[in-house]
Amino acid sequence: MTARIPPPSGIASCVVPTRVLMGPGPSDMHPRVVAALGKPAIGHLDPAFVAMMEEIKTLLRYAFQTRNELTFAVSGPGSVGMETCFVNLVEPGDKIIVCRNGVFGGRMIENVQRLGGSALMVDDGWGEPVDPEKVADALKANPDAKAVAFVHAETSTGAQSDAAAIVGLARNAGCLSIVDAVTSLGGTPVLTDQWGADAVYSGSQKCLSCVPGLAPVTFSERAIARLKERKNKVPSWFMDLGLVLEYWNAPGGKRVYHHTAPVNSLFALHESLVMLRDEGIETAWGRHRLHHAALKAGLEVLGLRFLVREDARLPQLNTVHVPVGIDEAGVRRQLLDRYNLEIGAGLGPLAGKVWRLGLMGYSARAENVELCLGALAETLSGMGVEADKGAALAAARSIFTGVQA
Amino acid sequence: MTARIPPPSGIASCVVPTRVLMGPGPSDMHPRVVAALGKPAIGHLDPAFVAMMEEIKTLLRYAFQTRNELTFAVSGPGSVGMETCFVNLVEPGDKIIVCRNGVFGGRMIENVQRLGGSALMVDDGWGEPVDPEKVADALKANPDAKAVAFVHAETSTGAQSDAAAIVGLARNAGCLSIVDAVTSLGGTPVLTDQWGADAVYSGSQKCLSCVPGLAPVTFSERAIARLKERKNKVPSWFMDLGLVLEYWNAPGGKRVYHHTAPVNSLFALHESLVMLRDEGIETAWGRHRLHHAALKAGLEVLGLRFLVREDARLPQLNTVHVPVGIDEAGVRRQLLDRYNLEIGAGLGPLAGKVWRLGLMGYSARAENVELCLGALAETLSGMGVEADKGAALAAARSIFTGVQA
Repeated sequence: MTARIPPPSGIASCVVPTRVLMGPGPSDMHPRVVAALGKPAIGHLDPAFVAMMEEIKTLLRYAFQTRNELTFAVSGPGSVGMETCFVNLVEPGDKIIVCRNGVFGGRMIENVQRLGGSALMVDDGWGEPVDPEKVADALKANPDAKAVAFVHAETSTGAQSDAAAIVGLARNAGCLSIVDAVTSLGGTPVLTDQWGADAVYSGSQKCLSCVPGLAPVTFSERAIARLKERKNKVPSWFMDLGLVLEYWNAPGGKRVYHHTAPVNSLFALHESLVMLRDEGIETAWGRHRLHHAALKAGLEVLGLRFLVREDARLPQLNTVHVPVGIDEAGVRRQLLDRYNLEIGAGLGPLAGKVWRLGLMGYSARAENVELCLGALAETLSGMGVEADKGAALAAARSIFTGVQA
Repeated sequence: MTARIPPPSGIASCVVPTRVLMGPGPSDMHPRVVAALGKPAIGHLDPAFVAMMEEIKTLLRYAFQTRNELTFAVSGPGSVGMETCFVNLVEPGDKIIVCRNGVFGGRMIENVQRLGGSALMVDDGWGEPVDPEKVADALKANPDAKAVAFVHAETSTGAQSDAAAIVGLARNAGCLSIVDAVTSLGGTPVLTDQWGADAVYSGSQKCLSCVPGLAPVTFSERAIARLKERKNKVPSWFMDLGLVLEYWNAPGGKRVYHHTAPVNSLFALHESLVMLRDEGIETAWGRHRLHHAALKAGLEVLGLRFLVREDARLPQLNTVHVPVGIDEAGVRRQLLDRYNLEIGAGLGPLAGKVWRLGLMGYSARAENVELCLGALAETLSGMGVEADKGAALAAARSIFTGVQA
């Protein structure tokens, strides 16, 4: 047999620029995580790999602050983590209360509807946290609702919602809770057991500073009970927890092949979780708060205003308004071209109006805070905005010094 | 807020053994691919990344031997590639002819049924290729069938089916064809356009010798037309091609965020596809045939018989019967412990009865053939089987020499 499509010309090995990642994820990876990623692949049923999977489960329980047996990493991006929760816990006809205060709440609605459920929306503004009173009202009005789904840390806006309150309301009403912790895990407290949450999913490339492509998830006993009560088969073969777990949890000691795990990405996740354990999760939360405080002090000197009110701000994702008259995409392009610095654009109704500055995981470092403030000051100055670089850097440094003193 | 789950002790950074991968995948990665994997992550909307995505599409068209515009890599393992095909092309009530001659045909049936379709089975034995006459009969008996789905290269058995014939039958009957090329792509001819196939999916970790976790796919214009005619929304948000393509294909020049691409894995895929292009796909097919011939010559000296008849054998996956009375798991354990060599076990009805010896991509090297034959000969000899290591190696070498002369 002969090949008729000729080999394409003009394509060479990829030269990848070295960026500093201060957008909404992926974040910078620590050199130890990069080294783990590049270890030689081994089989997905190799005893050495299986032992590592068990350790990942243990380490993820620490990150999620849970004792849930059913805690593992889905072989896909965060949005597959989201879909794994919905596809297993929602059946046709189910009423699900979905809180929407940004892109990802909207995506939850899509998930519910495509599964034949009906999504009862609780809306809050983009940049606002979810209002627990509205959730309480929705639960009262819909005593037959099966679950409450919300985003703990809205990556599209930088707003953090009161997960303890919302999960508590759901629980009191006999509903399951489904929590998006993609941007919060490892950065701000995700307290699965203290909250009493039933299904929590996250992503590897945010505050865990691992390679993108894995979605840590955890499920409570109540979630498992719901799964066992299903009338219909889970519509997705790949995401059916009953099948995935014969590989990840090996009930009765028999590990069944399900799919070829992304072995190298899991090496990297293991290393990033070992690093989180070594740092201590409370110390990691504190590190995110500290770097946020320093960045904030500098941004305020530059006259940049935050989108989210102070008590609902995510330290790891700082969303600021673009100054009036400034070409926001032009600023991002200059940051990328001149400083190799990536920051995030706005999404949906915030497109063109905000920048999203991430300080996630290994990206939350003093040198990044200073690079970002300096680059923003120089770029804005070049566009005619009054932006005092020296004062901004001094303000940031005073935060670091104050804490270090 | 305080953490109540204490940091787990007794877990250190992972020490990964260096294996030679001669199972059914993952295969060994070339050092260039490993180096690409370990490049620093950049954003999934970075201009440098977007340029690389375009090159990946071009390179994948060469690998799939197609001009299909809709050719890209799904962010998940091969089984997500499979599900992406079914979830987009099957609607509730659709009749789909599914050929089953191993594990993966069975998985296709699961996919069809979970989507509310009905799967009309065409069964052949494990180790047999799909019988095109049975497919022709099924098409005659079911003029309302919407698609024919089959596995080109059955990873569970090592049998290759006549894709050109089966796709041709489907096409003549007005049916779409869905082809599993997970184990064939890059190893034996996958001629998407010459066959006239409509949806073909593969995996990154087989004959492309890339990191596991990506699923190359390609869809014909007919498949896209079917997608556009759908009465119902695609039940999966993540796998909905209409949404994924706003990111991968950027219609009208506007690239829309869909999910965070597994950036590093795509660096690695790009490099592995550049290497395939540089080698030339016909040369790659020839290399697989050559190493298969050498391995086969040696295995026959050792008295190991193939499961699959000669004209249907996959060169990249050699399935042999376990000699009577031999502890098959014990042999695999010894190969792993003493030689760091991974070979595959049997699945389903073949569990305990066969070994699967992979020669995929970068694993198809003379040193691997010799390591495998030597290790098998020594291990079997140690168990009392007559196995002449020197003769087996000489038989393999004569194939290499004969070709080289």
